[in-house]
Amino acid sequence: MASVYPVILSGGSGTRLWPLSRKAHPKQFLTLIGGRSLLQETALRVLPGKDGLFGPLTIIGNETHHGEAERQLAAVNAAPALHVLEPLARNTAPAAAIAALAAQRHGAEAVLALLPADHAITDVAAFHGAMSKAAEDAKSGRIVTFGIVPTGPETGYGYIRRADTARPTGTYPIAEFVEKPDLKTAERYVAAGSYLWNSGMFVARADVLLAEMAHHCPAILDAARAAFDQGKRNGTALKLDPERFGACPSDSIDYALMERTDKASVLPARMGWNDVGSWAALYDLAPKDETGNALAGDVITIDTARTYIHGDGKLIATIGLEDLVIIDTRDALLIARRDKVQDVKAVIEKLAKAGRPER
Amino acid sequence: MASVYPVILSGGSGTRLWPLSRKAHPKQFLTLIGGRSLLQETALRVLPGKDGLFGPLTIIGNETHHGEAERQLAAVNAAPALHVLEPLARNTAPAAAIAALAAQRHGAEAVLALLPADHAITDVAAFHGAMSKAAEDAKSGRIVTFGIVPTGPETGYGYIRRADTARPTGTYPIAEFVEKPDLKTAERYVAAGSYLWNSGMFVARADVLLAEMAHHCPAILDAARAAFDQGKRNGTALKLDPERFGACPSDSIDYALMERTDKASVLPARMGWNDVGSWAALYDLAPKDETGNALAGDVITIDTARTYIHGDGKLIATIGLEDLVIIDTRDALLIARRDKVQDVKAVIEKLAKAGRPER
Repeated sequence: MASVYPVILSGGSGTRLWPLSRKAHPKQFLTLIGGRSLLQETALRVLPGKDGLFGPLTIIGNETHHGEAERQLAAVNAAPALHVLEPLARNTAPAAAIAALAAQRHGAEAVLALLPADHAITDVAAFHGAMSKAAEDAKSGRIVTFGIVPTGPETGYGYIRRADTARPTGTYPIAEFVEKPDLKTAERYVAAGSYLWNSGMFVARADVLLAEMAHHCPAILDAARAAFDQGKRNGTALKLDPERFGACPSDSIDYALMERTDKASVLPARMGWNDVGSWAALYDLAPKDETGNALAGDVITIDTARTYIHGDGKLIATIGLEDLVIIDTRDALLIARRDKVQDVKAVIEKLAKAGRPER
Repeated sequence: MASVYPVILSGGSGTRLWPLSRKAHPKQFLTLIGGRSLLQETALRVLPGKDGLFGPLTIIGNETHHGEAERQLAAVNAAPALHVLEPLARNTAPAAAIAALAAQRHGAEAVLALLPADHAITDVAAFHGAMSKAAEDAKSGRIVTFGIVPTGPETGYGYIRRADTARPTGTYPIAEFVEKPDLKTAERYVAAGSYLWNSGMFVARADVLLAEMAHHCPAILDAARAAFDQGKRNGTALKLDPERFGACPSDSIDYALMERTDKASVLPARMGWNDVGSWAALYDLAPKDETGNALAGDVITIDTARTYIHGDGKLIATIGLEDLVIIDTRDALLIARRDKVQDVKAVIEKLAKAGRPER
């Protein structure tokens, strides 16, 4: 019998990888590294294997991406057993409730793993090892989150401070969740040794998750349950009831539950995790040539170093560049200093203000 | 009666403004500054005006550009009286011979001005003043070239060293022609005060030019004359005989004649001249905003300074850039440090080696 029922959360619509990611084509669907999308990689990491760690796959995503997600998953032989369609975005807490409700088809105490669709993990064996450990703790009633051991003072991640003493299972009580820090604070966190990156991955028993949500965020659970119960089933697809889901408060699982429940645990883990939250992150992940360039597309570089280029078929020639990110698409071209790519937000804001379609 | 018969030399096919300029679409035809092409600006500078300085216009260019050149000149009411079509490129010496032969329809001693089609001149009044002076000297039998008083130690231009003592007309005997210098040498030239930029503009009597060519480069003159005499007239167009012109040695007027004749003079002049020989030169010429950016197209800049952007309709967003040149076209995109744009040659060479069409 499987230990963990994976639920991929694919509702994100981030634009931090603009102009490749768009409102209509978020980053989990992009083929950025190797030949597969982040969604495909996420699904392949939780395929039911011979060790019996994982059970059938559930995915929760926006209904506008139904076809794309199914196509991508079918292409890697990882079609989900259940595909829950959100009629609109409501952040992760409602999705967690839906995931727990859906997992109960495998039993009230089924252990589920909530997995963002748009993160990269380079050490899959370590991921599986952490999952086994977390599942043990979850079975005993804990809600376990993966806390990634920092490899540097990242300012783009939220942090989790663990308690000083581990439980016998290797997980720690959570001392506090902290917001994305500035560089100085991040350096202090890394030096302290007790701070971990908040990975957004959770493992818990369905009944525990539902009971804690009933206690800490009942409005979210009630609305999510109504949307789930009134949802329309069509094959493997389940479309949540739009009116009920629309009435659900939008909140993150961190805010709505994890910061409030006393059942939260964090499992420190190293697995080459990266949330691929910027072009700079993607550069870090990408294979690079001897001059530190990561090039995709039809590119001629002259005297160019440490530069990330993603072309779109058109010839791109560079001369004398360093530490840039160049992303060419059919209707938009981004050229940015690698350490300033987070300001792509400002570009998106300008486009939104002008009502432009290139978002 | 007109004093000077202008002949525009439009046979160039430079690729230093790649990817906008191509073998098939050289820079004199590009609309780069203001609303007009360099060819149009060149023609408008020598329109027959009320001061009677200039006579009817002749243009010499490659036959593949016949239609484009005629369209552009007609659009600014500067249609040429004679359009000589070269079946292939043979550098400037044969063109000078053709120009002199063509000018003789205005009289054996007609004064002609040889004017490259792809240079910029910002001070047209100064250009006209210099032209009047040069024409005086030309009438007395000199072959006068315009020597631009350097505004800085440019390494992209050839230089002319004038003799120490001017003639009464203000022109100087030429001491020597020197190749493009390195920066140190260029600084020495500028400090010396006797070195001038070789502008490639010449003023001479047709009979003098022909006689000197007969003496110093007879093979070129003979072949050019045969190509001219055997050419096919069609309206204002005269297509040179391909076989005869193909047999003509290819050489520059500097090498074939100016470095050899004792009739050469140089007239020092300031006229805001620029050969527009690189994107850096074009940046220098372009109007700039308060952050030193020169932008054309659909551009959003964030934290970007001293950067030249030429778009092609597609949205271009930049973040944190300095001193770059970004040229987007339908099938090729160039991103280069502004002080390294001369290396575009290396890109062209790579494209040529690979037999690619984007040249």
